[in-house]
Amino acid sequence: MKAIYPGSFDPITNGHIDIINRASLFFDEMIVAVMVNSKKQYMFTTEERKKLIEMEFSDNEKIKVVTFQGLLVDYLKQNNIKAIVKGLRTVTDYGYEAQMALTNKNLYEDAETFFIHSTEEYSFISSSLVKEIYTYGGSLSGYIPKHVIKALEEKIL
Amino acid sequence: MKAIYPGSFDPITNGHIDIINRASLFFDEMIVAVMVNSKKQYMFTTEERKKLIEMEFSDNEKIKVVTFQGLLVDYLKQNNIKAIVKGLRTVTDYGYEAQMALTNKNLYEDAETFFIHSTEEYSFISSSLVKEIYTYGGSLSGYIPKHVIKALEEKIL
Amino acid sequence: MKAIYPGSFDPITNGHIDIINRASLFFDEMIVAVMVNSKKQYMFTTEERKKLIEMEFSDNEKIKVVTFQGLLVDYLKQNNIKAIVKGLRTVTDYGYEAQMALTNKNLYEDAETFFIHSTEEYSFISSSLVKEIYTYGGSLSGYIPKHVIKALEEKIL
Amino acid sequence: MKAIYPGSFDPITNGHIDIINRASLFFDEMIVAVMVNSKKQYMFTTEERKKLIEMEFSDNEKIKVVTFQGLLVDYLKQNNIKAIVKGLRTVTDYGYEAQMALTNKNLYEDAETFFIHSTEEYSFISSSLVKEIYTYGGSLSGYIPKHVIKALEEKIL
Amino acid sequence: MKAIYPGSFDPITNGHIDIINRASLFFDEMIVAVMVNSKKQYMFTTEERKKLIEMEFSDNEKIKVVTFQGLLVDYLKQNNIKAIVKGLRTVTDYGYEAQMALTNKNLYEDAETFFIHSTEEYSFISSSLVKEIYTYGGSLSGYIPKHVIKALEEKIL
Amino acid sequence: MKAIYPGSFDPITNGHIDIINRASLFFDEMIVAVMVNSKKQYMFTTEERKKLIEMEFSDNEKIKVVTFQGLLVDYLKQNNIKAIVKGLRTVTDYGYEAQMALTNKNLYEDAETFFIHSTEEYSFISSSLVKEIYTYGGSLSGYIPKHVIKALEEKIL
Repeated sequence: MKAIYPGSFDPITNGHIDIINRASLFFDEMIVAVMVNSKKQYMFTTEERKKLIEMEFSDNEKIKVVTFQGLLVDYLKQNNIKAIVKGLRTVTDYGYEAQMALTNKNLYEDAETFFIHSTEEYSFISSSLVKEIYTYGGSLSGYIPKHVIKALEEKIL
Repeated sequence: MKAIYPGSFDPITNGHIDIINRASLFFDEMIVAVMVNSKKQYMFTTEERKKLIEMEFSDNEKIKVVTFQGLLVDYLKQNNIKAIVKGLRTVTDYGYEAQMALTNKNLYEDAETFFIHSTEEYSFISSSLVKEIYTYGGSLSGYIPKHVIKALEEKIL
Repeated sequence: MKAIYPGSFDPITNGHIDIINRASLFFDEMIVAVMVNSKKQYMFTTEERKKLIEMEFSDNEKIKVVTFQGLLVDYLKQNNIKAIVKGLRTVTDYGYEAQMALTNKNLYEDAETFFIHSTEEYSFISSSLVKEIYTYGGSLSGYIPKHVIKALEEKIL
Repeated sequence: MKAIYPGSFDPITNGHIDIINRASLFFDEMIVAVMVNSKKQYMFTTEERKKLIEMEFSDNEKIKVVTFQGLLVDYLKQNNIKAIVKGLRTVTDYGYEAQMALTNKNLYEDAETFFIHSTEEYSFISSSLVKEIYTYGGSLSGYIPKHVIKALEEKIL
Repeated sequence: MKAIYPGSFDPITNGHIDIINRASLFFDEMIVAVMVNSKKQYMFTTEERKKLIEMEFSDNEKIKVVTFQGLLVDYLKQNNIKAIVKGLRTVTDYGYEAQMALTNKNLYEDAETFFIHSTEEYSFISSSLVKEIYTYGGSLSGYIPKHVIKALEEKIL
Repeated sequence: MKAIYPGSFDPITNGHIDIINRASLFFDEMIVAVMVNSKKQYMFTTEERKKLIEMEFSDNEKIKVVTFQGLLVDYLKQNNIKAIVKGLRTVTDYGYEAQMALTNKNLYEDAETFFIHSTEEYSFISSSLVKEIYTYGGSLSGYIPKHVIKALEEKIL
């Protein structure tokens, strides 16, 4: 059974990594899908975001990183994927994500979304927080992997 | 991979059945676990609740029904199960269930809870609603399977 | 157009009165329905609860007080009522009440629930709070009408 | 009694139509008010949005479509309207809408907001979802009326 | 400035201890108030609950443990306390606690409730969870202090 | 003990003033911190926002107004402040603010966030609402102090 974990990953955080590691134990293949939204501005390019994830999981053969643009359900249909994995950090997240799950199932009957609750220590980490801390020179140790910190530093210099 | 779907099932509703059917597609074995809580009063006995579920899934070899008393995580450890499946109907449900998921993971590191959102048409069905409607003679068609309606009627007469 | 405002009203509070007054402006007849649940213990009897409400609205011909036992939708059908009015005090209230509204519509297609948000000054008043304050001798002025305070005092003596 | 149902309606969805149809049974006149916010970018012009709604309700004499700019309460005062109808899809919606209802009542004492819960099958439909699905070529059948699908297609070509 | 931290503490958990320690740094005196509710059944007597808390904070002169029955605001008035400290674990907790804070302020204008969010690692611990785990023989290390585990064991034997 | 109350204050509202007045009773010094975010567009300049707050509290020696740019925790460390005060208006607010509190504590162990619930009459007031009402010529009496209304009028003319 394959599963997909879609997101912006701008950049990948320790919170994302925790969800991917935990969920991947239950599926034969875990596809991390970097979404491309032409209306959004990203700090890292699509390829950079993809590469930073691949570096993290280079030892794990189950995990594949892809990029895609369009409706998630179209990608699912084309690649014969039925399980969507989503990490939830708060009750507020759930309100929105439940609507997305209903929508995706409505667009593609076979699509099933499995929600996993964030481990407490990662529950407050988000990509936007990472960018805000970085902007003001705060320490990112514990929030993102070392190679992502390095990439952020190279980005700026 | 085995998964467990724990609950009181007093009695099983169409909402439970929907979650079981949807989740069972993603696991090799789906264990429906009827919980016994000596402090709670049930309408149906443990064995009756178990049997009503078994009647529903008699054609599906993947689904097994068990009863258990005690901590869920102890059952998981003893039976080498790591995936817990939970259906969510509302945001309010999520607040409580997220706490339970954290607790179970804390008591047993390998335990992972996968939440699935109720299909809209079942989102308002609960066992306690079923009992309330039954008490006042309302129609239960669409809420519980026919054999459960029959069992309810025999219960009373 | 008739509307119904169901509740336990044990006893009626200034919060209930505010909702009834506000909603009654929009309907030709406003039926305040005192629910009888044989499993619940009440401080006031059904008749007492009914009378305390009638005393409050004796000048308002639009408002009628009734008692009923059973499913709300059965009462609606028998009395040709389609509008249910509910007051909401918090977001948490809404989770439960939305489920009840869906259930009632499912049991009776014509039933429509109209939610009204509590005025701020009444948003924390509930019948159970009133009973708790009364138990410990706190002042109930501003929480319930004077004739209800008097009834509470007579109840105890 | 007149009621108003305000919104952007860019474009009108089956979810909006469901709320309008259900609420209009309880009022003598139902005014669908297309809001104009000069800071927002719309897909359809104000007139187009108005016309797409009128096409839907051409057979229903109770429903009138208007456009307005400014504070909702000013429109209410000028047109002697006291009832505002709002559809709620999720608990999260309610948090925001309850604040708006309090604000409107504070600005205009007579303004009363009546909330109606979305029918399950429409609970995940929103205008922004419609636009996203359209962008990627997904099917909109079941989300918006046929004449709106046609208008979307003409918009693009 | 004095502050009060009211609760049942049946028994005190590491979550309670964390809140008390964190809040006590900001006040001159921290009064832990063990509530007595004659309608509730407790595992430990009032005096036992008080003593288990005192044993935990025997080295901290700022922290005093008291017992009280009645309305919290009456205790505040009699002891010239204005600050109430409450720990919040989830968004759902907040809905209820905000209502209590409004009520207390309404009953006693000077009463101010300060909410502190639980540290992640304690966010799922509650006294009722502790009792449930204990009932089924699960390990309580990390949930409650050692002397409380010992008291629980003596209770049973 | 010093406390900080951070915000945009564009402009300060009666809701902010209520929180500041209530919280300042419990601390020796209350620092109102006007945040500067170079990505945001403000109606009032940083200095104007600061001055409008100072005018309100000119008689209260405990209250100091500062401006700052960067991470809040850096300001706390540099100025030896450990208490952050936040006003909460709704349950939805809490979801976000709890995450911020966890983040700040994670970045600076000594940082403690104290949440206070808005008084009912101010619970729906926000700076963005003030700006919207102003845009359409609604009355702002009761929402912001007189000198802020005057500043708004001068701003436009």
